[in-house]
Amino acid sequence: MPIKKFPAAVMGPIKHKALINVDLGEGFGNWTITSDEDLLPFIDHANIACGFHASDPLIMMETVRSCKKHGVKIGAHPGLPDLQGFGRREMKLSTDELTAITIYQVGALKGFLDQEGVPLHHVKPHGMLYGMCCRDYETSKAVFKGIPKGVKVFGLPGTCMEQAARDLGVEFIAECYADVKYNADASLLIERKKKAWDLAEVRRRVTQQMETCTAPAIDGSTCELPVKDYPISICCHSDVPGCLELVKETRVAVDTFNKAYFPNK
Amino acid sequence: MPIKKFPAAVMGPIKHKALINVDLGEGFGNWTITSDEDLLPFIDHANIACGFHASDPLIMMETVRSCKKHGVKIGAHPGLPDLQGFGRREMKLSTDELTAITIYQVGALKGFLDQEGVPLHHVKPHGMLYGMCCRDYETSKAVFKGIPKGVKVFGLPGTCMEQAARDLGVEFIAECYADVKYNADASLLIERKKKAWDLAEVRRRVTQQMETCTAPAIDGSTCELPVKDYPISICCHSDVPGCLELVKETRVAVDTFNKAYFPNK
Amino acid sequence: MPIKKFPAAVMGPIKHKALINVDLGEGFGNWTITSDEDLLPFIDHANIACGFHASDPLIMMETVRSCKKHGVKIGAHPGLPDLQGFGRREMKLSTDELTAITIYQVGALKGFLDQEGVPLHHVKPHGMLYGMCCRDYETSKAVFKGIPKGVKVFGLPGTCMEQAARDLGVEFIAECYADVKYNADASLLIERKKKAWDLAEVRRRVTQQMETCTAPAIDGSTCELPVKDYPISICCHSDVPGCLELVKETRVAVDTFNKAYFPNK
Amino acid sequence: MPIKKFPAAVMGPIKHKALINVDLGEGFGNWTITSDEDLLPFIDHANIACGFHASDPLIMMETVRSCKKHGVKIGAHPGLPDLQGFGRREMKLSTDELTAITIYQVGALKGFLDQEGVPLHHVKPHGMLYGMCCRDYETSKAVFKGIPKGVKVFGLPGTCMEQAARDLGVEFIAECYADVKYNADASLLIERKKKAWDLAEVRRRVTQQMETCTAPAIDGSTCELPVKDYPISICCHSDVPGCLELVKETRVAVDTFNKAYFPNK
Repeated sequence: MPIKKFPAAVMGPIKHKALINVDLGEGFGNWTITSDEDLLPFIDHANIACGFHASDPLIMMETVRSCKKHGVKIGAHPGLPDLQGFGRREMKLSTDELTAITIYQVGALKGFLDQEGVPLHHVKPHGMLYGMCCRDYETSKAVFKGIPKGVKVFGLPGTCMEQAARDLGVEFIAECYADVKYNADASLLIERKKKAWDLAEVRRRVTQQMETCTAPAIDGSTCELPVKDYPISICCHSDVPGCLELVKETRVAVDTFNKAYFPNK
Repeated sequence: MPIKKFPAAVMGPIKHKALINVDLGEGFGNWTITSDEDLLPFIDHANIACGFHASDPLIMMETVRSCKKHGVKIGAHPGLPDLQGFGRREMKLSTDELTAITIYQVGALKGFLDQEGVPLHHVKPHGMLYGMCCRDYETSKAVFKGIPKGVKVFGLPGTCMEQAARDLGVEFIAECYADVKYNADASLLIERKKKAWDLAEVRRRVTQQMETCTAPAIDGSTCELPVKDYPISICCHSDVPGCLELVKETRVAVDTFNKAYFPNK
Repeated sequence: MPIKKFPAAVMGPIKHKALINVDLGEGFGNWTITSDEDLLPFIDHANIACGFHASDPLIMMETVRSCKKHGVKIGAHPGLPDLQGFGRREMKLSTDELTAITIYQVGALKGFLDQEGVPLHHVKPHGMLYGMCCRDYETSKAVFKGIPKGVKVFGLPGTCMEQAARDLGVEFIAECYADVKYNADASLLIERKKKAWDLAEVRRRVTQQMETCTAPAIDGSTCELPVKDYPISICCHSDVPGCLELVKETRVAVDTFNKAYFPNK
Repeated sequence: MPIKKFPAAVMGPIKHKALINVDLGEGFGNWTITSDEDLLPFIDHANIACGFHASDPLIMMETVRSCKKHGVKIGAHPGLPDLQGFGRREMKLSTDELTAITIYQVGALKGFLDQEGVPLHHVKPHGMLYGMCCRDYETSKAVFKGIPKGVKVFGLPGTCMEQAARDLGVEFIAECYADVKYNADASLLIERKKKAWDLAEVRRRVTQQMETCTAPAIDGSTCELPVKDYPISICCHSDVPGCLELVKETRVAVDTFNKAYFPNK
């Protein structure tokens, strides 16, 4: 996909060092998605599934310990109550339910963090819940009400997530996506099952996003990512086929960018 | 059932004012067990179900708020992962799993308490998990490892629960039972579905337990309750038919006892 | 609510004896909604929940036996996979998933019927799945594809359910509702939890529907029910507070109507 | 492990051509165990999971179609209601519950078979339910009561499964195991997660079982398999690491044996 002309002079590069986040602990019982252990050396932030769309107490306990060992910052990754759909089937919940499922899942993960003496760094809604938060302000607000004081939220800039975080006084970290396609309006195309990516394309996409705050959209156009001066974490998914290579490629792109743009940090 | 002779002079009354605990929040989705609101004025401690054997995030949020309003102390009531069996079907879990399901459930409830600014008072395992803790030291230890520092545990005195609490340094509150039958060895007979009780019998049973530290056993004998000098909470179940009257009757028995034996407290 | 004028001469009474259907087996594990046994003497058709929005294997086995004992015709009542939401939270499933969850649930119920030597009379989608079938033709078609040959479907006339049944050659039974409110366009207002009804109002509503093929709508207008010459079953819900009295009242209304309009049947 | 002397003259080879069965459809939602499609060309019987320990309606629908395409005979593979434990955690259910969960799961699978016009060939309990059936006669009987008339059962010979099948008049197919270890008493050692096998060892074990009706036990002894003159199906598991190679190796062993012992069939 050829990258169209975009107003680079206007958008410019992101204002902070890029970091990388991955959803971890997304197995369930005997089922696994990938080897989280292999990914941990290459990432900065882990979003740990909390048992509603994936994970279970044993997996959460082990994943928290692995993250602690590798010094990776831990966030809660609450999802819709739908293991069978991996939290990627839209469900209509009342705002009270949205708040309650967030408190429940974040609290459950925090239980493991408290046992290990590790702080909860952030909360990132999963899958379709993330998509619903992007599109709907009341959904974002209901979910964010369930976030403990002082904990950040990861979200898509320029959406209802950013607005709700600001209104509720929740610190916002902007995400860019290595392995999710953008619609022309810079919203995400959430698919039920992930497909493999060409690594060179991943590198180009990630680099373009960091250097220009734009991304190729599925209609061939270039969309602008309104990341402003928020801190940035680039998301990779552990359920993409070949995720280890994808994460490593993203790490190289990120390190290269950080070295060039933030040589002294 | 005639109460046999027992060594009252030896056993004597319990050493502390009696209090009452009830399992609350044990509905699920649209299903309810009873009106928790009606019970709250008559109890001291609530054990709130945490979503594994009963309850869901919305019910937990509402139940925490109701308890707070009534000034009732709140404990977590973790159970086996078995909604269909109401946590009353025995399941074999590894010790790591037992620890993990405890941390998860207690953490989830604590999430709601933190939001409301209410402390977690105690943890009481539910149903068959309670029975397994009574019988098996390793089970008790695995479960109690999941209890946050400074939080008490409710359990049956003279069982592995008492031993494990002591070994792990967890503060122990001894329970007596208003509406569960005792075997001759003072262990509990856990039934899948509760039956209604004769209120006069409940009153006699509760009073006997408080005054003599003994109880009628199902074989017609009298069993000794080794409550020692632990603080005491008397358990009533919200899924017994006619639970509101049962709780009220227990309240009268408890208040009468407390007034007679601890007039100045 | 005053009933507005409606073109009675045009609409006229329903063309067949009215029958009554109720959703049964809608407990789960230890939780119950109502006593199905009490309702069985007053109904003609039972829609038995199949474990996705309510019920479990043991309840289904017992409910099938109760229906058989009372000579009540049995239908499968498949729902969305959402016990917590009682199948009343909208979920987006693919058409393949909709077909598959129908086959699965209907097959599971048929297992119990085969054991008892009782035929499967009909299929009626539950709650939000019913609502989705009414509104969306592809949903109806996907669900009805999962119905075994020769089995009827219960549905709302004048909706996509009727159209899909006709296109797929599935025999259609039209429903009227004793205890669900109609929107002005004759669609149903599906609520998460049912509220109690005034019995006199139920009787008036049911009688009006049978005698005139119209119903009072929530905006005060009168909506026409396009029941044509389909056979009719009037639905009552077992989770309405006071359902036994509601069902009895509906039985009286139906028997009165049948005696007046179909004296020889 | 050296194979000890055993009374080969007495035990002799199995009396029928050996066939191969594998548990299929054991993914759940987005999670997969292996590629069932790859295994189908090498097996005779598929035991399809029914949604309680693994699988879901969509997976079942697709797995039934794949089996039909490959001409593989289909059995139902009901398990304990425990997705998180993959049906490998022991649970205590009443005999009524055991019958009901069998009818439910077998009926659900039969729904898909009926749609495809394919008969149900057999039922094989899964995992811990299988182990419980082997050890306990009442469990076997309760489960087998849920099997439709004319459908066979797969089980371990010399156990309560064989006895209950005979008493209930259910046709019995004896299983040997390629990839599960035997205890000295010829019972199975059921593990929560499967480990990889050395292929040469698999071949030796399978061949020994077919040629001598004995198997190496975990204590180094040789146990006798009382397969009598039952038809035989050799079981391989799809959740063993490297299962495709294991199944292929078993196929070679089976074909070699069949050619030598049953050249004209």
